[in-house]
Amino acid sequence: MTLLADTLARIAGPDDAAARAARARQDRLTKPPGSLGVLEDLSVRLAALAGACPPPAPAPVAVAVFAADHGVHAQGVTPWPQEVTTQMVANMRAGGAVVNAFARQVGAHVRTVDVGVAGTLAPGDDLTAVKVRPGTADMTAGPAMTRAEAQTAVEAGIRIATGLVADGYRLLVTGDMGIANTTASAALVAVFTGADPAEVTGRGTGIDDATLAHKVDVVRRALARHTPDPADPLGVLSAVGGLEHAALAGYVLGAAAARVPVVLDGVIAGSAALVAAALAPDAVAACVAGHRSAEPGHAAALRALDLRPLIDLDLRLGEGTGALLAVPLVQAAARTLTEVATFDSAAVSERG
Amino acid sequence: MTLLADTLARIAGPDDAAARAARARQDRLTKPPGSLGVLEDLSVRLAALAGACPPPAPAPVAVAVFAADHGVHAQGVTPWPQEVTTQMVANMRAGGAVVNAFARQVGAHVRTVDVGVAGTLAPGDDLTAVKVRPGTADMTAGPAMTRAEAQTAVEAGIRIATGLVADGYRLLVTGDMGIANTTASAALVAVFTGADPAEVTGRGTGIDDATLAHKVDVVRRALARHTPDPADPLGVLSAVGGLEHAALAGYVLGAAAARVPVVLDGVIAGSAALVAAALAPDAVAACVAGHRSAEPGHAAALRALDLRPLIDLDLRLGEGTGALLAVPLVQAAARTLTEVATFDSAAVSERG
Repeated sequence: MTLLADTLARIAGPDDAAARAARARQDRLTKPPGSLGVLEDLSVRLAALAGACPPPAPAPVAVAVFAADHGVHAQGVTPWPQEVTTQMVANMRAGGAVVNAFARQVGAHVRTVDVGVAGTLAPGDDLTAVKVRPGTADMTAGPAMTRAEAQTAVEAGIRIATGLVADGYRLLVTGDMGIANTTASAALVAVFTGADPAEVTGRGTGIDDATLAHKVDVVRRALARHTPDPADPLGVLSAVGGLEHAALAGYVLGAAAARVPVVLDGVIAGSAALVAAALAPDAVAACVAGHRSAEPGHAAALRALDLRPLIDLDLRLGEGTGALLAVPLVQAAARTLTEVATFDSAAVSERG
Repeated sequence: MTLLADTLARIAGPDDAAARAARARQDRLTKPPGSLGVLEDLSVRLAALAGACPPPAPAPVAVAVFAADHGVHAQGVTPWPQEVTTQMVANMRAGGAVVNAFARQVGAHVRTVDVGVAGTLAPGDDLTAVKVRPGTADMTAGPAMTRAEAQTAVEAGIRIATGLVADGYRLLVTGDMGIANTTASAALVAVFTGADPAEVTGRGTGIDDATLAHKVDVVRRALARHTPDPADPLGVLSAVGGLEHAALAGYVLGAAAARVPVVLDGVIAGSAALVAAALAPDAVAACVAGHRSAEPGHAAALRALDLRPLIDLDLRLGEGTGALLAVPLVQAAARTLTEVATFDSAAVSERG
């Protein structure tokens, strides 16, 4: 049995009894019932995932930043040079990227993972080197990768999640780095939601109208060439995916199999979560939508996953930055079930 | 010179040079320009308030919970008994309220302040006792308080803010506790925005349609009785305000005078900030809208203040809970200006 098949077999649905217990407890806490809005629902989901009320504290926290390059960069979908992926991995390892600053803010460990960067990275303890290939091929000219490479990248992501859980981390966060990766994301979202590429292709790091129109056309041509079948998620990944998308899909699956929540960042993670959900629908129960990015494909992915984002601040950076900002909200939601007094325990009167 | 007059005289506008420096630095950080959305704007406001780029770290953090009762409770605007104010203050002092749990989450000190609770509270180091009167009078039958009491409560809030800053706190958060206080908030918002009471009166802790209609009528009758003049903020407070609203207005003014940012919670803080802005328009430069509550009057207040909320999760609890959840976002925004590498320092290529 492959690691992927074994992982899929371990993923089960939410625990309804724990969910009911969490909802009942929310209604006994010293606050008007329902007054914590989305955080009450989130606390119920955390309990259902853990199979316990209260759920364990979602801490300590780790963010895995999966870095990879994209052959479709050659089509001119972004003004940023491909070497920026390699340079930004170095910046992250030096602690100078926004993901590092936000990880320090929320007390998260940063795990930088080379799953397919085109450039050569200096080895070191601060880099997990699982390069499947040095970037994908151009999806408009052929498959982005082989089916075997897609599975290898998915399994690399599973191993990262499993390893972090084994190291004691109890809240995982998705991160990504890869120039041109919003193009692959748009293709994946179009496949799994059925949306037209024009509806789910965005400006990424910030491109002008002409480049956006060209980017939509690139996605449309790739989909026309491969006609990917959403019922065959590995096939979709190999046709139009990215190595970081594949690894992130595995990371979500690994978290779900361990019943540890995983906070999704923007459109890269959202499109990868669509892959994970296609492989194991119950994996969505482990997912928390950290934020809604400015990318239109991200909103489409969240709708398809039926996830409500916690943060909505026009962020479009990636790296895991939006998801990290949601970490205190996830932890606060869990805290309500463990730390807040009930009407009975605090001798507070209820409404008449 | 009164403390209020002295405080108003010390409030000045944002520092444009620091704002320009912060904007320029954001454009040199290793990320696509603008990709941190609202957080970039927030970092610029923090620099403008501090008069320095980068601004000082917004830490340590304190939340002051101003508790008071409301004579208008007698009109039946809420199903909760008035004694809940006193009971919840005890719950907060014991650490069992949601505000305590969220304060622990973000590392904030909780300062509980009795500015006008109707019940008797046990004295102790964990309570700042500055009771102006044991609850307001019923605003539908006469003024809620005298003009002198309103000023005393405002000055109590100024002293709390000034004292916290003197103690080293560099990010202040608003908190409140007072059964029926959304009724006074609705009246204040109606006065300062010109909105009809039906547009800005909400369900508070959760009331049915009949009680809501009655609550709108109560606000309408109070405004008809007093016809408060928005150009006379102390007069408005004395007619239809709450003691915690007055203290919160002073707290905002005290923060602004010290050029320390203050994170506003929901409609109680929003309506108090309208009072502060009427007294000193530049005080808004110190305000950060922590979240948007489910109360319609809160959205109206934020529009009038031209503040964009950071969190929007259907919260309607009060106590300072929504504002506390925004604290890591404020700190993260400041961190970008101090911790993130520039394209030059990290040797990252820029877009072509």
